[in-house]
Amino acid sequence: MTKALIPYKKKNAKSRLSPALTLEERESFVELMLRDVVTSIQDAEIEEIDILTTPDNGVPKDLQVNVVLDENDLNEAINEYLSHEKEPIFIIMADLPLVRAEHIKDITSRPEDVVIVPGKGGGTNVIFVKDPSNFHVKYYGSSFLNHCNIAKDRECSTYIYDSFLLSTDIDEPHDLVEIMLHGHGRSKEYVLERFDMETGKTRAKISSSDA
Amino acid sequence: MTKALIPYKKKNAKSRLSPALTLEERESFVELMLRDVVTSIQDAEIEEIDILTTPDNGVPKDLQVNVVLDENDLNEAINEYLSHEKEPIFIIMADLPLVRAEHIKDITSRPEDVVIVPGKGGGTNVIFVKDPSNFHVKYYGSSFLNHCNIAKDRECSTYIYDSFLLSTDIDEPHDLVEIMLHGHGRSKEYVLERFDMETGKTRAKISSSDA
Repeated sequence: MTKALIPYKKKNAKSRLSPALTLEERESFVELMLRDVVTSIQDAEIEEIDILTTPDNGVPKDLQVNVVLDENDLNEAINEYLSHEKEPIFIIMADLPLVRAEHIKDITSRPEDVVIVPGKGGGTNVIFVKDPSNFHVKYYGSSFLNHCNIAKDRECSTYIYDSFLLSTDIDEPHDLVEIMLHGHGRSKEYVLERFDMETGKTRAKISSSDA
Repeated sequence: MTKALIPYKKKNAKSRLSPALTLEERESFVELMLRDVVTSIQDAEIEEIDILTTPDNGVPKDLQVNVVLDENDLNEAINEYLSHEKEPIFIIMADLPLVRAEHIKDITSRPEDVVIVPGKGGGTNVIFVKDPSNFHVKYYGSSFLNHCNIAKDRECSTYIYDSFLLSTDIDEPHDLVEIMLHGHGRSKEYVLERFDMETGKTRAKISSSDA
């Protein structure tokens, strides 16, 4: 049975969104994104969801998830987790509210040992690994290349899953427009309520609806 | 028989790449990207390729393509072209060197009337339209929404094709890193020769190898 693992940080999250959202708004917003990710995982019929967080980062009590607390940095915490697991793990970041159940079903039904979903700029947004104890993660920097190399070293067959929606982690104000255009659920509701979409001759931009 | 249409502009192209490349380099580079797009289309076994350009924008003579000249703006020129066509048209921008033959085969074998591939920020990077005389384009601004609405107005069934590689048009210096990581062909060769990849704790960045 495939399990999902979502690393999550609420406290002072997403500082690069501060030109668009206050600290309080960002903390509410990351929770909405988490809820959308959890909903898509549940819709894909993955029943066991572990949220990996630190003791001071409250996961909402009403979510049907397990909370795994770890004070270590992201890589150490995930690698400690993976070392004890025997079943396939779907690792997804909490800032990917554009994910749909179909993506998750597609990825977890691939025949390869490892599926890697690249983010923009060499990031890794999702990893699906069939044998977690034979893998480790190395986020930050060019983590996409790290993960391709780790899979190769472990002689894992690898599939690179090509998705614009899964490449779009919500980091900066201009990413919010992707939620307006391609999003769903609570994060879309929030962004549509909070912002207008300005369309100029170039790309769509975000503006505050209070302005 | 599906035909491909590639709008192309060489002269003073890609000014937003000027922090990374001189005018002369940009003009060489857009030609390399065009060559990679043409190669992928040919590999997908689309034999007829029309390049839509203006009289002063030289398309390399050795390419196995037709050159269609039009002095009008992008939308007018494409719409004039579409109005005379009876067979399916695959419209792809010339700044999408990450496209592979598999994408093109996937898109052109979809059963829907229209396939739209969104770019970042509400752009449209590829449109496949089975009945070109029953469609028109409206690029610039939120062209993705425009094209969804046009398809709806014309009662065309529509598929949104989700691809990170096809969402990545090469506009700004940070896009060049995607060619390094996920590219192929001549544009990748050029970028690897011209730049080093710096990896910091965040995202991969481009730096000049002359520095």
